[in-house]
Amino acid sequence: MTVDRLLPTPEAHDLLDLTTELATRELAGKVDDFEARGEFPRDVLRTLGRSGLLGLPYPEDVGGAAQPYEVYVQVLEILAGTWLGIAEAVSVHTLSCFPVAEFGTGKQRAMLPEMVGGELLGAYALSEPHGGSDAAGLTTKAVADGDDFLVTGTKAWITHAGQADFYNIFCRTGGPGPRGISCLLADAGTPGLMPQSPERLMGLRSSAPAQIVLEDARIPRDRLVGEENQGFTIAMRALDAGRLGIAACAVGLAQSAVDYATAYAKEREQFGKPIAQFQGIGFMLADMATGVSAARALLLNAARLKDAGRPFSIEAAKAKLFATDMAMKVTTDAVQVLGGAGYVADHPVERWFREAKVLQIVEGTNQIQRLVIARSMTG
Amino acid sequence: MTVDRLLPTPEAHDLLDLTTELATRELAGKVDDFEARGEFPRDVLRTLGRSGLLGLPYPEDVGGAAQPYEVYVQVLEILAGTWLGIAEAVSVHTLSCFPVAEFGTGKQRAMLPEMVGGELLGAYALSEPHGGSDAAGLTTKAVADGDDFLVTGTKAWITHAGQADFYNIFCRTGGPGPRGISCLLADAGTPGLMPQSPERLMGLRSSAPAQIVLEDARIPRDRLVGEENQGFTIAMRALDAGRLGIAACAVGLAQSAVDYATAYAKEREQFGKPIAQFQGIGFMLADMATGVSAARALLLNAARLKDAGRPFSIEAAKAKLFATDMAMKVTTDAVQVLGGAGYVADHPVERWFREAKVLQIVEGTNQIQRLVIARSMTG
Amino acid sequence: MTVDRLLPTPEAHDLLDLTTELATRELAGKVDDFEARGEFPRDVLRTLGRSGLLGLPYPEDVGGAAQPYEVYVQVLEILAGTWLGIAEAVSVHTLSCFPVAEFGTGKQRAMLPEMVGGELLGAYALSEPHGGSDAAGLTTKAVADGDDFLVTGTKAWITHAGQADFYNIFCRTGGPGPRGISCLLADAGTPGLMPQSPERLMGLRSSAPAQIVLEDARIPRDRLVGEENQGFTIAMRALDAGRLGIAACAVGLAQSAVDYATAYAKEREQFGKPIAQFQGIGFMLADMATGVSAARALLLNAARLKDAGRPFSIEAAKAKLFATDMAMKVTTDAVQVLGGAGYVADHPVERWFREAKVLQIVEGTNQIQRLVIARSMTG
Amino acid sequence: MTVDRLLPTPEAHDLLDLTTELATRELAGKVDDFEARGEFPRDVLRTLGRSGLLGLPYPEDVGGAAQPYEVYVQVLEILAGTWLGIAEAVSVHTLSCFPVAEFGTGKQRAMLPEMVGGELLGAYALSEPHGGSDAAGLTTKAVADGDDFLVTGTKAWITHAGQADFYNIFCRTGGPGPRGISCLLADAGTPGLMPQSPERLMGLRSSAPAQIVLEDARIPRDRLVGEENQGFTIAMRALDAGRLGIAACAVGLAQSAVDYATAYAKEREQFGKPIAQFQGIGFMLADMATGVSAARALLLNAARLKDAGRPFSIEAAKAKLFATDMAMKVTTDAVQVLGGAGYVADHPVERWFREAKVLQIVEGTNQIQRLVIARSMTG
Repeated sequence: MTVDRLLPTPEAHDLLDLTTELATRELAGKVDDFEARGEFPRDVLRTLGRSGLLGLPYPEDVGGAAQPYEVYVQVLEILAGTWLGIAEAVSVHTLSCFPVAEFGTGKQRAMLPEMVGGELLGAYALSEPHGGSDAAGLTTKAVADGDDFLVTGTKAWITHAGQADFYNIFCRTGGPGPRGISCLLADAGTPGLMPQSPERLMGLRSSAPAQIVLEDARIPRDRLVGEENQGFTIAMRALDAGRLGIAACAVGLAQSAVDYATAYAKEREQFGKPIAQFQGIGFMLADMATGVSAARALLLNAARLKDAGRPFSIEAAKAKLFATDMAMKVTTDAVQVLGGAGYVADHPVERWFREAKVLQIVEGTNQIQRLVIARSMTG
Repeated sequence: MTVDRLLPTPEAHDLLDLTTELATRELAGKVDDFEARGEFPRDVLRTLGRSGLLGLPYPEDVGGAAQPYEVYVQVLEILAGTWLGIAEAVSVHTLSCFPVAEFGTGKQRAMLPEMVGGELLGAYALSEPHGGSDAAGLTTKAVADGDDFLVTGTKAWITHAGQADFYNIFCRTGGPGPRGISCLLADAGTPGLMPQSPERLMGLRSSAPAQIVLEDARIPRDRLVGEENQGFTIAMRALDAGRLGIAACAVGLAQSAVDYATAYAKEREQFGKPIAQFQGIGFMLADMATGVSAARALLLNAARLKDAGRPFSIEAAKAKLFATDMAMKVTTDAVQVLGGAGYVADHPVERWFREAKVLQIVEGTNQIQRLVIARSMTG
Repeated sequence: MTVDRLLPTPEAHDLLDLTTELATRELAGKVDDFEARGEFPRDVLRTLGRSGLLGLPYPEDVGGAAQPYEVYVQVLEILAGTWLGIAEAVSVHTLSCFPVAEFGTGKQRAMLPEMVGGELLGAYALSEPHGGSDAAGLTTKAVADGDDFLVTGTKAWITHAGQADFYNIFCRTGGPGPRGISCLLADAGTPGLMPQSPERLMGLRSSAPAQIVLEDARIPRDRLVGEENQGFTIAMRALDAGRLGIAACAVGLAQSAVDYATAYAKEREQFGKPIAQFQGIGFMLADMATGVSAARALLLNAARLKDAGRPFSIEAAKAKLFATDMAMKVTTDAVQVLGGAGYVADHPVERWFREAKVLQIVEGTNQIQRLVIARSMTG
Repeated sequence: MTVDRLLPTPEAHDLLDLTTELATRELAGKVDDFEARGEFPRDVLRTLGRSGLLGLPYPEDVGGAAQPYEVYVQVLEILAGTWLGIAEAVSVHTLSCFPVAEFGTGKQRAMLPEMVGGELLGAYALSEPHGGSDAAGLTTKAVADGDDFLVTGTKAWITHAGQADFYNIFCRTGGPGPRGISCLLADAGTPGLMPQSPERLMGLRSSAPAQIVLEDARIPRDRLVGEENQGFTIAMRALDAGRLGIAACAVGLAQSAVDYATAYAKEREQFGKPIAQFQGIGFMLADMATGVSAARALLLNAARLKDAGRPFSIEAAKAKLFATDMAMKVTTDAVQVLGGAGYVADHPVERWFREAKVLQIVEGTNQIQRLVIARSMTG
C-alpha cells in the first residue's frame, strides 16, 4: 500500500522516491542470498553511499544531505521494508558518525566527508558481554601511555565488527559510573583491536554483530572525541538518535509485512472466496495496519521534536518501544495470515518475523526503554 | 504532565492555554456534580460558546475561528481530560453544524453564526434502534407533502436529544440503501418530533443520549440540506470528522488518567517506598504514557491530512479505533495503579474508566472501524 | 451455555443444581435493586445459610458440608454469575471461619456451628489504609491489659464491616514484620470497635467494604486465635484459600457475560443477519469463551491441589491473577458486543464490567499476585 | 521447574518419569544437530517405539499402553519440551493409527501391533495446496478400478511424507462436500504415490512436511478405512484428538522456555544484581508461568472429557487455540529475557520461538479453531 506521507519539502519526496527505486533495483534481488550466506553487503553500502544515503542528517559542508530526522527516518523505513540488514547498517553507520560530527576536533572532523560519504564504514562499540543494558558500568579500560591510550577489554554485539574502517570505542578513563567514560576513535587496523567471529543470529544474518577483543590497543590521544570522561554523555545523545533509527526499521519491516499479507489474503481462496473477505482475516489486517500507522506517527513526532530542537529523548524511547513491539506482533500475525505458506522460506514473512525480534532487543532492550520512560515520569 | 506540542501557530498555543484555563476554572469544579445528577450543562456550553469554542473549525465569516482540525482536536482533548460530557457535547455540536456549513443553502447558512456561536445547540440524528452500525439501512421515512416533508420513525442514541435547538434528521426519501437518504434540518419545536427520556448510561451521564420519536413531523422542504438523496454522503463526511473528535476525547481522557495515576504512585507508599519506584508499577505507567503518545500522534496525523485536503477517512478510522482501545486499557490500568482507592468515587479514575468504555462504541463501534479499514485494504 | 463439569461425586452435582436453582429463584430478581440502593442483603445470606452454602468446606461435625474446594469454588462461581455481592459475601464469610476452624481453641470452635451455619456473619480485618498490599507491615496495635488485649488502629476495605457478627482482627502484638502479628476474634458489639461508612464503590455496592476504627477495643485474651504472633501465618493461609474464592467469582462473572453476549449476538441483527454470524463478533465470542474455560481449569487445578493436600499457594495466585484479568477483558468485550445497549442499565453487562474491575484488586492486587509468583520462581 | 502433576495412577507417574529420562538421555544431545541438518530422526523414533511411546492411547491387545489421553498428552508435553520434532512425530504417528484403530476392518487391524509399536511409521494426508483450512473441499480423486481405487491429486503439508511406511489418504469418492470423502490406507511403496522435497521451514526442520503427488496411485479397495464416504467423519474425529497433541506440544515448549528464561534471569546480572530481582523481569516470568499453567489445565480438562467419553471437540479446539497462542507469546518473551543472548543459536530459546509459530498454524490454524468454537456457540 502506498503510504500517504506529509513531507516537509519536495526534495524530501524526491529522496524517498530515490530510496524506493534503489530498494527495488539494488536491494530486493539480493537480500535472500546475503541472508542465507550470512554475508555482509559491503558493495551495496558503497552504492548507497554514492547515492548520498549514508550521511543524510549531517551538514552539507561535510558531505551530508542536511536532511531533518523526519526525512532521514523515513529513508530508513523504506530500506528496512526491503532489507533490514542494510537499514540497520545505514542506521549504525550514521550513528557512528555522530560523535565526531557533534563533538569532534577539527582534525577529526576532517575525516567526516569520507565518513558520511561512506568510503569509511563506522562501528559503535559501547556494549560489553556482562553489561548489555548497563552502559554506565562498562569496564573496558583505557590507560594513558605517552601520547596514546592503551585500551583493554571486550566489546559485545558490535555491528560492523570486522567490517568497519573506524570504531567509536567507549572505555573507562576515570572512576566508576557514567562520569568516568571516554569516547575514542580507533582505526580498523589498530594493533590489539581484534574483531571476533560473528554471532550466530536467528535473523539479520547479513549484518551479524561480533565481539571485539581489545588487548593494549594503542589509540592516539588526539583520537579522543569530546572531553575526557564526557563519553557517556556522547553515547547517550547518540543512542537517543539511534532509537529513532531502530523505530524506523520496525515501521518499515511491519509495513512490508502488512502489505505482503494483504496482497496474499486477496489472492488466497478458502471456502470459495479470498480469505481477505473473512472478517477473521480482515480485522487482523486492519489491526496490523493501524499499529503500523500509529508507530510511524509516534516516530515522526519524536523526529520532529528533535528537528525542532526540543527534548526528544523520552519520545524516542516511546517510539522505539512501541514500534518494535508492534513489529513483533504484526509480523507474527503476517505469518499467520499466510498460514503454512508463511512458515516457509518461499515468502519473506518468516524472515521479517525473525528480524522483528531483534529490534525489541537492540539499542536498549524494550525493558530499558520502559525504565527510561518510567524514570522521566516518576523520578 | 505537560505535553510538548508542536503547534502550527502562536495563536494555537494561546487557544490551548485558554482552553486549559477554562477547563480548570469552569469545568473541573462542576463535573462530579453534573455527572452525579445526570444533568446536561447547558450553561457551561454557553460559556464555551462565548469563548469561541463551539465553532472552531468553521470559517470566520460565519463566526467560526477558522482553526485547522489539528488544533481543534487538541482543544477537545483538553476538555475531555477534565469533563468528557462537555467535550462530547462540543464534538457533537461541531458535527451538527457540518452539514449546513458544507452543504447548506444560503438561507440555511444564515443560521450558521448562531449555530457555530453556540446560541443554537445542535444534534445529529442518524442512528436507529435496529441499525446502530448499519446507517445505510435506516428506515425513518420522509414523505413529501406539499412544501414539506412528513417524517416518521425512531432515532436512537441521539446526543442532545431534548436539549438541542436544531436536529439533523437523516431519513429515507428514496429507495433502499445509501442512495435513498436525505438530510433535513429540523427545529426543536417541530410538532411530532418527540425526544424521549435519556438512556440510563454507566457513564457520561451529564450528556446522556436519548431516542427521538418522529410521528408525521413536518419539516419544510427548504430545510433539505444538500441534494435530495445526498444524505448518506453528508452523513459519512461528517462522521469522518466526528471520528477525529472521539479519538481526541479518548486521548484527553487517557492523558488525565496517566497523569493522575502517576501522581498517585509517587505519593502512595507500600513496603517503605513510593509504589512508582517499583518496576511493576513504573513499567505499567510507561506503557500507559506510550499508548497515549502514540494515539495522539496518530490522531494529529489524520487531522493534518484533513487540513491538507488529503483523503483522511481511513486514518481517522484508525485513530478512533486505536485511541479508544488505548483509553480503555489505560483507564483500566489507572484504576489498578490506585488499587482499592481507584475503585471509589473519591478519585476520578473510576469515572474515566466508565467513560472510556463508551468511546469504543460511539461514532461507529470499533468493529465498524475495523470493517472500514479492512475494506480499504482488501476491497 | 451449560458448562460440562467433571465433578467428583453425584452429591456435588446435586449441590451445583441446588445452587443454580437458588440463584435463579432467590438472587436473580433482587440483585439490581440491592445494587442500586447499595443495601447489604443480610436476609438473602440467611437463606443461603439455611441451604448450607455458608460453610461448604468445613467438617460436618461443625455444621459444614465437608465439600472439597473443587466443589465449593464452583458453587461460588455460580453465585457470582448472578450476583457478585452474594458470592463475595459467601467467600468472605467462609474465609472468616477459617482461622477458628483451623487454629481455634476448643472454646472458640464451639462457635463454629453458628458461624458456618451463617447465623453469625463474619468479617476479616487485615488491610489497613496505608498498607493495602503490605500486610506484614500492619500497625494496628494490641496491648495486653490483664486478661484482655486493648486494640487500637484502623482497618480498611473490610467487607461486612458494620454487618458482621464477628471480626478476625489482625494486629501487632510483637515486633515489626510478619512475626509480630496476632489474630483476635472480636464480637461485633466490642466497645471501641467502630465500623465507618461504606466506601462509595463503582460496583459491588450491595457489599461495599468500610473502614473499622479501633480505639482501645477490649478483646479477651481467650479470643486469641492460634498462638500469639502466629497471625501472619494464619492470614496468609486464609488468603491462599481466599484467592481461590475470588478466582471463582471472576470465572462466574465472565461466564455470565459470555452467555449473555452470545445470546444477544444471536438475536441482534445488523446488515441483514444476526451479528453472531460475523466473524468479527464470532471470533470475539470464541476468545471470550476460551478465556473462561482456561481460567476455570486453572482454578480447579489449584483447588484440587489443595484438596489433595499438596502445596497450592502459587497455583492459587496464578488462578486469581489469570481469572480476574480474564474477567476484566471478557466483560469489556461483552459490553462491546452489545454496543450501545451494553452501556445502559437495561442489560447486566455494564454491571459485570464494573464488578470485574474490583476483582483485579481485592485479596491481593494482581501486582501482588505477580510478585508472589515471581518470588516462588526466582527466590 | 518441576511441575506438580495430579496424575490418575502410579503407573502414569512412572511413565512420565521414563519419558523425562528418555528425553534427557536420548533427545537432548541430538536435537540441535538434527535441526541444523534438517534430518528426520527415524532411529530415535524406533527407540521411543521400543519404549512403548508410539501407541500410548491404544488398547493393550494391539500393543498399545491403554493410557488415558490425560496421561498421553503429558508424555507429548515432556517430549516437546526437549525436541518438538520428536513430539510432533509421535503425535502425528499416533494420529495416523487412529483411523484403523477406530474404524479399521479386522484385516486392517492386524497391522495395528506393528503400527502402534512403531515398526511402521504413519502419515496423515488430509490437507491440499489450495485448501489448507477447507478440508471438506478436497479434490484428490479416487476412481474405482476393479478391486482397486486409482487416486490422483496432491496432498500438502504432510508430516512424515517420504519417511512413512503407511499413509492415510483422504480423497473424494463421491459428490462435493464432506459427504463424498473416503479414507484409504496406502503403503509407502504404492506406485504413483510420490512424496516431494520437504518444505524449507523456519523451524521444526527435523520433521519438515512435504507434498505428496498422487498419479493413478493404485490402492486396493480392502484398504478403505470405515465406510465409503465416511472419510470426513474419520478425519474430524482424528483431528479432535490431534488438537490435544498440538496443545500438549505448545505447553511443553513453553514450559521449557519459562524454565530456561528463569534460570538465566537468576544468573545474569545487570546493575549489580540478578535481573530476576527486577520486577520488570520478574513480573514477565510470572505472567509466562501463569500462561503455561492455564494452558496445561485447559488441555488436561479437554483430555479428561475425552477419557470420560464426553464431547470434547470444542474444548480441544479451545486448548489448541489457547496453548499455541500462549506458547508464541511465552517464547517471544523468553528470548526477550535473555536479550541479545536469546537471539543467538547458543541458547535454545530462539529455536523454541521459531517452533512456537508453527503450532499456531498446524492441525487447523487458530483462525479455524475460533471458527469452530464460535459456531458451537452461535450456530
